[in-house]
Amino acid sequence: MPVTLSLHPRVQLSRERYRGVSQQITVSIIGATGYSGTELLRILVRHPRVALGALVAGNSAGRKICEVVPALWGRLDTVVQAYSPDAVAGSDLAFIALPSGEAMKIVPELLERGVRVIDLGGDFRLAEPGSYREYYGREHTAPELLPAVYGLPELRRDSVRGKQLVANPGCYPTSAILPLAPLLGAGVVERDGIVICSMSGVSGAGRTASQDFSFCEVNESVRAYRVGRHQHIPEIAAALAASAGGDVAMSFTPHLVPITRGIHTTISARLSNGVGAAEIENVLREKYGSEPFVRLTGSVPPEVKNVAGTNRADIGWHADEAGRQVTLLCVIDNLVKGAAGQAVQNMNILFDYEESEGLL
Amino acid sequence: MPVTLSLHPRVQLSRERYRGVSQQITVSIIGATGYSGTELLRILVRHPRVALGALVAGNSAGRKICEVVPALWGRLDTVVQAYSPDAVAGSDLAFIALPSGEAMKIVPELLERGVRVIDLGGDFRLAEPGSYREYYGREHTAPELLPAVYGLPELRRDSVRGKQLVANPGCYPTSAILPLAPLLGAGVVERDGIVICSMSGVSGAGRTASQDFSFCEVNESVRAYRVGRHQHIPEIAAALAASAGGDVAMSFTPHLVPITRGIHTTISARLSNGVGAAEIENVLREKYGSEPFVRLTGSVPPEVKNVAGTNRADIGWHADEAGRQVTLLCVIDNLVKGAAGQAVQNMNILFDYEESEGLL
Amino acid sequence: MPVTLSLHPRVQLSRERYRGVSQQITVSIIGATGYSGTELLRILVRHPRVALGALVAGNSAGRKICEVVPALWGRLDTVVQAYSPDAVAGSDLAFIALPSGEAMKIVPELLERGVRVIDLGGDFRLAEPGSYREYYGREHTAPELLPAVYGLPELRRDSVRGKQLVANPGCYPTSAILPLAPLLGAGVVERDGIVICSMSGVSGAGRTASQDFSFCEVNESVRAYRVGRHQHIPEIAAALAASAGGDVAMSFTPHLVPITRGIHTTISARLSNGVGAAEIENVLREKYGSEPFVRLTGSVPPEVKNVAGTNRADIGWHADEAGRQVTLLCVIDNLVKGAAGQAVQNMNILFDYEESEGLL
Amino acid sequence: MPVTLSLHPRVQLSRERYRGVSQQITVSIIGATGYSGTELLRILVRHPRVALGALVAGNSAGRKICEVVPALWGRLDTVVQAYSPDAVAGSDLAFIALPSGEAMKIVPELLERGVRVIDLGGDFRLAEPGSYREYYGREHTAPELLPAVYGLPELRRDSVRGKQLVANPGCYPTSAILPLAPLLGAGVVERDGIVICSMSGVSGAGRTASQDFSFCEVNESVRAYRVGRHQHIPEIAAALAASAGGDVAMSFTPHLVPITRGIHTTISARLSNGVGAAEIENVLREKYGSEPFVRLTGSVPPEVKNVAGTNRADIGWHADEAGRQVTLLCVIDNLVKGAAGQAVQNMNILFDYEESEGLL
Repeated sequence: MPVTLSLHPRVQLSRERYRGVSQQITVSIIGATGYSGTELLRILVRHPRVALGALVAGNSAGRKICEVVPALWGRLDTVVQAYSPDAVAGSDLAFIALPSGEAMKIVPELLERGVRVIDLGGDFRLAEPGSYREYYGREHTAPELLPAVYGLPELRRDSVRGKQLVANPGCYPTSAILPLAPLLGAGVVERDGIVICSMSGVSGAGRTASQDFSFCEVNESVRAYRVGRHQHIPEIAAALAASAGGDVAMSFTPHLVPITRGIHTTISARLSNGVGAAEIENVLREKYGSEPFVRLTGSVPPEVKNVAGTNRADIGWHADEAGRQVTLLCVIDNLVKGAAGQAVQNMNILFDYEESEGLL
Repeated sequence: MPVTLSLHPRVQLSRERYRGVSQQITVSIIGATGYSGTELLRILVRHPRVALGALVAGNSAGRKICEVVPALWGRLDTVVQAYSPDAVAGSDLAFIALPSGEAMKIVPELLERGVRVIDLGGDFRLAEPGSYREYYGREHTAPELLPAVYGLPELRRDSVRGKQLVANPGCYPTSAILPLAPLLGAGVVERDGIVICSMSGVSGAGRTASQDFSFCEVNESVRAYRVGRHQHIPEIAAALAASAGGDVAMSFTPHLVPITRGIHTTISARLSNGVGAAEIENVLREKYGSEPFVRLTGSVPPEVKNVAGTNRADIGWHADEAGRQVTLLCVIDNLVKGAAGQAVQNMNILFDYEESEGLL
Repeated sequence: MPVTLSLHPRVQLSRERYRGVSQQITVSIIGATGYSGTELLRILVRHPRVALGALVAGNSAGRKICEVVPALWGRLDTVVQAYSPDAVAGSDLAFIALPSGEAMKIVPELLERGVRVIDLGGDFRLAEPGSYREYYGREHTAPELLPAVYGLPELRRDSVRGKQLVANPGCYPTSAILPLAPLLGAGVVERDGIVICSMSGVSGAGRTASQDFSFCEVNESVRAYRVGRHQHIPEIAAALAASAGGDVAMSFTPHLVPITRGIHTTISARLSNGVGAAEIENVLREKYGSEPFVRLTGSVPPEVKNVAGTNRADIGWHADEAGRQVTLLCVIDNLVKGAAGQAVQNMNILFDYEESEGLL
Repeated sequence: MPVTLSLHPRVQLSRERYRGVSQQITVSIIGATGYSGTELLRILVRHPRVALGALVAGNSAGRKICEVVPALWGRLDTVVQAYSPDAVAGSDLAFIALPSGEAMKIVPELLERGVRVIDLGGDFRLAEPGSYREYYGREHTAPELLPAVYGLPELRRDSVRGKQLVANPGCYPTSAILPLAPLLGAGVVERDGIVICSMSGVSGAGRTASQDFSFCEVNESVRAYRVGRHQHIPEIAAALAASAGGDVAMSFTPHLVPITRGIHTTISARLSNGVGAAEIENVLREKYGSEPFVRLTGSVPPEVKNVAGTNRADIGWHADEAGRQVTLLCVIDNLVKGAAGQAVQNMNILFDYEESEGLL
């Protein structure tokens, strides 16, 4: 007998579908104990299509995952493994949630073994090894794979389908590209004079023992960092250029704010000549009106807490028509829509599941 | 075809069970927009047995719930109603999440209409109207219903079965009773000299506009409140006395700490004569060893963040055998195990579902 | 015998000066119990030139100030008064720290009685009653006094000298004008394409019981507000235009972040044609190199916590010379340099004291 | 001409006194860049009697202090030195603010050189080297100096006078001893059954890069630590025993809460036979009624934020006369009254200054 929840018709979670799609997939996580890896586990233990395979984390090998991640007590007691290609080889898919520079070392051998890969790091997002060298500070060891498809589903889902390797977008880029790309594509905003100002919670820095991220150094304070040189700049620029049909001139300034999770991005752009402010809403509604994970809040500024723990991006805006200036506001949870949730969304596309499966 | 997740054997979530139990139940929430009500919604929209009925909140009547509670966007667009017994009468169960004093006005008419009730407030927890008057400051209007069964499943599940009205325990009491009751019952700790010191996040105060709970008044500060007169004192005392087989002498001091959700309770008790410290672990493991929602951390102090968002209580302890003194530590999420999660746990008992259904 | 502290030569605090300047001044505070008023008290009780006169706060009249502001226990037990012009008439100076719209009702009668006034609110900052009406939502009742001198000492101290009425700048404007004004004045940045993005602690909202500023609504979240219509927009624009010698095209977006005090402002501006990035430092050092309350951090991003509790503004910057784009970063404590500290700085100018007196 | 502030008569800060006491003292700080050291600097740069001597910090040697501690910019540009006895030898007094185990290595040579020492660490608080070994985990290298006078001025000022070495009390102990000692001394509370529950901000852990104190690990959480074995236990027990005239039976449980500074301590004690609850107030008022740094709040629970940044301890209480149980509540700023402020208070005693000099 169908078990349906009293849901908004936009999202269907009908259990009959379980009978339609035959097998589950086996999924491994490489980097299972960092903040993104833990978020993946949180989502995947509830995903009806997923059987978890290897959980890999070098510094916890030999321990049960529920000992390392107390939130998983009583739910998962898989023993964490050290990485080896064989440990992962039997999986249909491997998520990689490691510091930049690590994924590129192991992705080739995983692909060779027929394992599909979704990389939550930045190693495969950029097209040019030169860009990668400039912003990440090292030589790319698998440049032949660059770039992998950039897994921003709301804009690229057709490109994601059928791929072996998906580059999961960065958190800041997700929050900046979602509001801007459609407006650039429709010529509603100009390609130059784009100013992006983002504020992120501290989990974006990863599970770290650095003094700079100690409680007393972060609490009751705000600071910008990596001004003008954050590694997300080239991928934002590339995605916006792709939508705009030409290079964009933008600046991006990230800031650390004393919350654990969440990103708030504020964008200033120039309203194109002859375009009315109403076009902003028209374009965004046309693009996102049916998307389960994008909510348009219009003139009501979105709030980080309203998307925390969800795979949703909320977008608001304000236009100064006389001043030909547009302010776009976007909030996401950096660990969900900015990382693990979006990665699972991409997984659902790769394996032809409903895109929102397991994300509610 | 069975769809099973790679779970710890302790918790089974086999979908075959859907075929075994026939109907869903219709559940209403009275007080759907407060913090507890919102938490109930968060859990119930994912509960496979529940069809949501009326969502009642006086101050939001006429608005869609997803407009009032942005976290529910795209998931639930039920229109909020004002309260009337008829609005709720068709439901199998109504949760009441209102300020104290409100539930007692409407529970009788709901019971008359055959609606089962789980009250998240304190109106039906105490046996004596005199106690209620003393601690809640008003006359009880339905004393004939006192007390309802006290819905602490790990200790009272057999009593909850088959009832029409369940008094869901308070948050602080849950965190104090869980560690203490078995030890008192087994005579491991004495009935006197019990000192309970609790720290709670601010959501415990409810959705309020009071100056006292404004950000600047709470942030970077700690304060005790209602010292010696908190309304949870009599229900803690009663539950402990029931387990101990006689009155207990206890003090309880609640404190406000600048987090949104969570409770940490520290208890000092006297180790009974002739009892070794090892008995603490023996008794707790015997009592809770198979419980899905109680995790024993032993000598590792439990942390609020490890239970946040879950229906779990983590309990740790330390014994000074020479000094005949025991320190018990318990953490819960005040909105989940301290309110909505425990209420759903009680619902599962009332309707013979697996007790952990919808709580993972 | 001189009592000197081992200080940086920039700031002299030689006690011999006490013998040089004869009288103290009597200072009243109207709105003594709000966050700005309390900050004024904190500073003034240590100011060697100040004898406190009337402390006025309507809602606490009749109570000792130390009962209303526990931080003043043992230091000040003046009885708070309700407002009347006579209560304040004997003072040399009155600070007004009231919600906007209140100061304009009482400033005329205070000036008539020969009391000098420094208004921490916005009633006298704008030149045009029309602007005031548009942004503050009411008719100005004393337009003949508009505008009062805009008390930003580092830029206007000569204008402040000798005045009877000083409009203390807003917090956000202080943090935006300080870095921008010299660069506009020197033609280093263009007058258009200025994008200002500010993040403020919650004390900027004032002592309020609004639900929007309750702990649970603000904690772990970020949100923009009053986008495109914040009342600080016209005063920022006016100050920048004055420095630039012509109108500026700017946008300003304020955000609320979960800290008690502090403002971080990030500004994007266009580097003028033919101007090298090095000019930014040259101009700022020339302008502020000797200022006791402005610290230039260069390429090191300034942090709110480093100025919290002080009257200092820290300014950092980054230039993309190829992209002709400049990012300016400025942090202040919204209650000190953004309100009370700057007000005392203006008081010191009015009465010919050393400008940093009492501010260390 | 006298320059007096409009102060409560309790505290006199008359400048005439400068002429009375001739010399200043030269003060060095060993461990100048940790949180306690920085707090000492903050206070001492404003102290009229102090000329700062050597600022010693191993890891910042060669850098200007204002570069390491941005709050001191424009106020102090002393170059930090590495430690050597000669660097400090010319000082009248040296404060030591180092991790435990470090002070005992250098105190003997400083005393030999005639430098008085106030140690903010725990090396000289305990009488027995065995106790030190048990709780601090190492052998004491200068046991002949144990114990130094325990510098809790409100209880021991006469003992502090004239000493060469003062052991500044720990933060938690200060907050527990102040309320309890007078009540034990007067026989108002019993010597056994004392339960101390303390909550501390994270700066109490020191300036550290440990993962355990990273923002994401501490934020939105509470945890107990070192349960039953915190190194402050023996010094609390010793101080209470000294006041009580015999050993006490107590437990002490510290907790970490997500604030930067502050301690809230809650104590449960047994009201002695035949003693009325009113005796609590009588004894505390008699003991502390004239003390500038102790405020009695009675039945109003004290709040950490009301003492933050000050050298004050606020004490409240509640008595259950029938239950023969007393709850005491005490708040301090762990870095001020719990460390640097109290150390300066002790310095003032050693050098016969007014005890509150520089602490307002």
